[in-house]
Amino acid sequence: MPQPWEEIGARKRHERDSKIPMDWTLDSGVPESLRDVTHLPYSSGILSARELDITGNYTAQEIIEGTIKGKWTSVEVTVAFCKRAAIAHQATNCLTEIFFDEAISRARALDKYLNDNSKPLGLLHGLPISLKDCFDIKGYDTTLGFSARAFKPASKTSTLAKMLLDAGAILYVKTTTPQGQMSFDTHSYLFGRTFNPYNRALSAGGSSGGEAALIAMKGAIIGVAGDLGGSIRVPAANCGLYGIKPSAGRIPAKGAEGTGIPGSGGAGLAPAFGPIGRTLGDCRFFLDVMARLQPWTYDGAISPYSIRYPPRGKRLSIGVLRCDGVVMPHPPVLNVLDDIAERLRIAGHRVYEIAIPEFAKALSVTNGYLTVNGNEEVFDLLAETEEPLSPWLAARMKRKGGRGLKDLYGLNHKKQQLEQVFLERLWEGSDESQRLDAILSPVAGHATPPHDAWRSQSYTSVWNLLDYPAGVIPVRTVNELELAEDVAGDPLGPLDKLNRKLWDSDKRVSFIGAPIALQVIGRKQQEADLFTAMQIVDGVVKNRPKATKL
Amino acid sequence: MPQPWEEIGARKRHERDSKIPMDWTLDSGVPESLRDVTHLPYSSGILSARELDITGNYTAQEIIEGTIKGKWTSVEVTVAFCKRAAIAHQATNCLTEIFFDEAISRARALDKYLNDNSKPLGLLHGLPISLKDCFDIKGYDTTLGFSARAFKPASKTSTLAKMLLDAGAILYVKTTTPQGQMSFDTHSYLFGRTFNPYNRALSAGGSSGGEAALIAMKGAIIGVAGDLGGSIRVPAANCGLYGIKPSAGRIPAKGAEGTGIPGSGGAGLAPAFGPIGRTLGDCRFFLDVMARLQPWTYDGAISPYSIRYPPRGKRLSIGVLRCDGVVMPHPPVLNVLDDIAERLRIAGHRVYEIAIPEFAKALSVTNGYLTVNGNEEVFDLLAETEEPLSPWLAARMKRKGGRGLKDLYGLNHKKQQLEQVFLERLWEGSDESQRLDAILSPVAGHATPPHDAWRSQSYTSVWNLLDYPAGVIPVRTVNELELAEDVAGDPLGPLDKLNRKLWDSDKRVSFIGAPIALQVIGRKQQEADLFTAMQIVDGVVKNRPKATKL
Repeated sequence: MPQPWEEIGARKRHERDSKIPMDWTLDSGVPESLRDVTHLPYSSGILSARELDITGNYTAQEIIEGTIKGKWTSVEVTVAFCKRAAIAHQATNCLTEIFFDEAISRARALDKYLNDNSKPLGLLHGLPISLKDCFDIKGYDTTLGFSARAFKPASKTSTLAKMLLDAGAILYVKTTTPQGQMSFDTHSYLFGRTFNPYNRALSAGGSSGGEAALIAMKGAIIGVAGDLGGSIRVPAANCGLYGIKPSAGRIPAKGAEGTGIPGSGGAGLAPAFGPIGRTLGDCRFFLDVMARLQPWTYDGAISPYSIRYPPRGKRLSIGVLRCDGVVMPHPPVLNVLDDIAERLRIAGHRVYEIAIPEFAKALSVTNGYLTVNGNEEVFDLLAETEEPLSPWLAARMKRKGGRGLKDLYGLNHKKQQLEQVFLERLWEGSDESQRLDAILSPVAGHATPPHDAWRSQSYTSVWNLLDYPAGVIPVRTVNELELAEDVAGDPLGPLDKLNRKLWDSDKRVSFIGAPIALQVIGRKQQEADLFTAMQIVDGVVKNRPKATKL
Repeated sequence: MPQPWEEIGARKRHERDSKIPMDWTLDSGVPESLRDVTHLPYSSGILSARELDITGNYTAQEIIEGTIKGKWTSVEVTVAFCKRAAIAHQATNCLTEIFFDEAISRARALDKYLNDNSKPLGLLHGLPISLKDCFDIKGYDTTLGFSARAFKPASKTSTLAKMLLDAGAILYVKTTTPQGQMSFDTHSYLFGRTFNPYNRALSAGGSSGGEAALIAMKGAIIGVAGDLGGSIRVPAANCGLYGIKPSAGRIPAKGAEGTGIPGSGGAGLAPAFGPIGRTLGDCRFFLDVMARLQPWTYDGAISPYSIRYPPRGKRLSIGVLRCDGVVMPHPPVLNVLDDIAERLRIAGHRVYEIAIPEFAKALSVTNGYLTVNGNEEVFDLLAETEEPLSPWLAARMKRKGGRGLKDLYGLNHKKQQLEQVFLERLWEGSDESQRLDAILSPVAGHATPPHDAWRSQSYTSVWNLLDYPAGVIPVRTVNELELAEDVAGDPLGPLDKLNRKLWDSDKRVSFIGAPIALQVIGRKQQEADLFTAMQIVDGVVKNRPKATKL
């Protein structure tokens, strides 16, 4: 007899998949052995040439402008993205909620509005945007991958979704997360695993793996996700995309469900929300629009802010973090980092290696915040349907009760000290010539790994603790020649040992062709400076001679 | 045999008072029966006419400009303020730490710097600034009124003090707080009571009572204090001064000691620091300078901000909160509020009464944060020297242990809901014509009360919960005719009953001549808009026909 969670999951998946029209179904399914599925939108014959063009070749701004200028209608754009999202889903299992019909009738209304008023509804007129499952949309589930949350539709729409609709965007899908949004891979018993479209044997990343898989398949231009320890950056990096985690308080958190009990989100680690996209320009466009939409007029927890760009052409001072002291990156990751650092130096920027001895302490405080309440609500939710922990979590979580207020205060105190240490070490050192404009670092100690093999969170999660904005830039993939190289030095500790295991001589072969990204980190709430630094790094990445692109 | 705390207190007070030079001592002391002591600087003969002029007749900016232009030297200014502070202290018991010698030799160095370099050291060149006891200064105690903290000098200087010194300010005294900074009156067993200089039978207010008494005596132009529930606004109001509590994160909290255990400060109610001054202009000048000093380059917990003033001459939309639903103000308070509201209306502003039904709930969440950890560290500190709770606290606090993490999360959740309710009710209502620019409200349900009689914190502390900037403006004093009026309506609840008791027919006489202030409240982190609103209200207050000033 199936367990309650099995029965719920089967019902939920069936209901979800029934929302895909017959015409948009891949006739012969997708063979399990097929690794790269990115060609399916082209080979399936479901999208017309025009639809392939619309979904494949434009920026978000171009889609909006094309709609407003009559190059295409909002209905055409929406149908094209719905079709492509349907294929993406069949190939990668990236969606949780599908509402194509609603999206298309909204598109029709937008076309009428434009026709009647000769002006767009708002700054995002007709742009399809995908949302991570966490954002409530009235009438649809927000399961966070828990069976116990299925078939309990949200009674209110999240503030972000409201803002996007007010600005003329079109919502059409919500995307998968791992169980409780708590892993760097995307697997839940409710929805199963989400696959990396470039190589389904590799991890799509998490916790926003559905977004990344969908966007990599070009089933969306921009998706909005959340990041409490790397959940935007890790999947973006894994799937060869751009992703930016701004500082907290830029995008409304109201109605974005977290796994913790209500009110636990603000204590220590504030969740930040941001875009995943195919280009840096799209991510930046989205964050610029968000600021112009004045989220503080919607959400009482947000303070007014503006994104003001510094003058162009400044030579930057970039600190390169080759190793965080916790995990020594695999050779391909360091090769990429060293190559780009050198090219930045050649381009005239001041580039030098930095060390942050307090990194391990910062990581331990971050983990302290993530576990201080014992996550008992997770175990309670699972118990409701007898659902087990997903494999990634099962290896890391045990029910052992929460700690107390004093533990939280202790973490707060350490965090305050670390804020000061990082300020003085990175941005405001007494030696003015050593002050940074940005940090360049790995996203992890490895390239995109196999399923459930993500091993290092230190490179991403410490920037959540400090609330520094950070973004990832795809660079290249691992090449076969790099398999000859070994990880440098002696193990730094238990986390480093785990990371080295992934590069064992018999295992490293699984990384051939795996995407490698770099991370750029800026100063707290200084997103404009981060974008500027990312643009410079991205320019260097893109202008490499072809031979080095591998 | 004296208790340990008695012995420590006697020793501490003796050491403190010995820092006042013999020449600056009031020969005949201050008779206990003397109520108004504000004339003592003039009558004592300790200050020269020039010193009385320097300390009595200029704004902060004028003092700085006069020093830079050679109208007087920094030494002259510093000696004058030290003398006047010495008198203020003898009359009101407002100081905890006295370091006149250090201040005067710093003034000498500043004069030399100016002479040698023909330019000032910084934006605050030569300005004496007093600090509330909470700000650590290396080598001096930060007792917070606890005997157990006496004779344990700070090993580091607080970030604020460092910033002020970097900018050329002169520090010369630290000022009294009640035990643990936890009362709205200023009494501790370590230092005794601080008196209101206009009427020593009335409360100086708390927890920054020392600052207010000192500034009201013109022993300082500007003092910096902290406010977690009204601690800047209440003493400023009680002593006929201006005080502004900005949003948190404007002035560095690093090295500003709180009573809670380290790390408890950030959880829910963030302490905000700001100025108390004799004029609105001085307070605003100080906060403008703080922004220009870029505190975020000193303190890793502060995010960059700027204070940008809106265009002048705008007609404001002002919501008048006559009653918060918790405490019905005494007649003189409402008379003042109604009078100023009417004059604002006549001046062309849109003024209308507002009600906030959620006020009581907000007050209960605020109090929840203040008590969630049980304040056990207070009882532990007291036990060290067998010191009793001060009278104000003894009536309100019992040792009963802290609550848990889930309680804190519950408060966070309620706070999030309230942030949204207040946003929609005050600033972003669906009816655009009802959106406010500022709120005008009482500071409390009563004018300056007798010692330990402060009864209402709802009017001030809820703005700490919401992190709205708020300031107080002195208006007038209670006049005898107003004693004929009774408090309107039936009691609203237990807090209102306590407030009404203060106005019992046999007690209200103690309010004759007591200062009444009004509070102006702005939107979170929008200090510039608050200053603009305060300026408009202050203008109306100052331009009343004399007859109404009473």
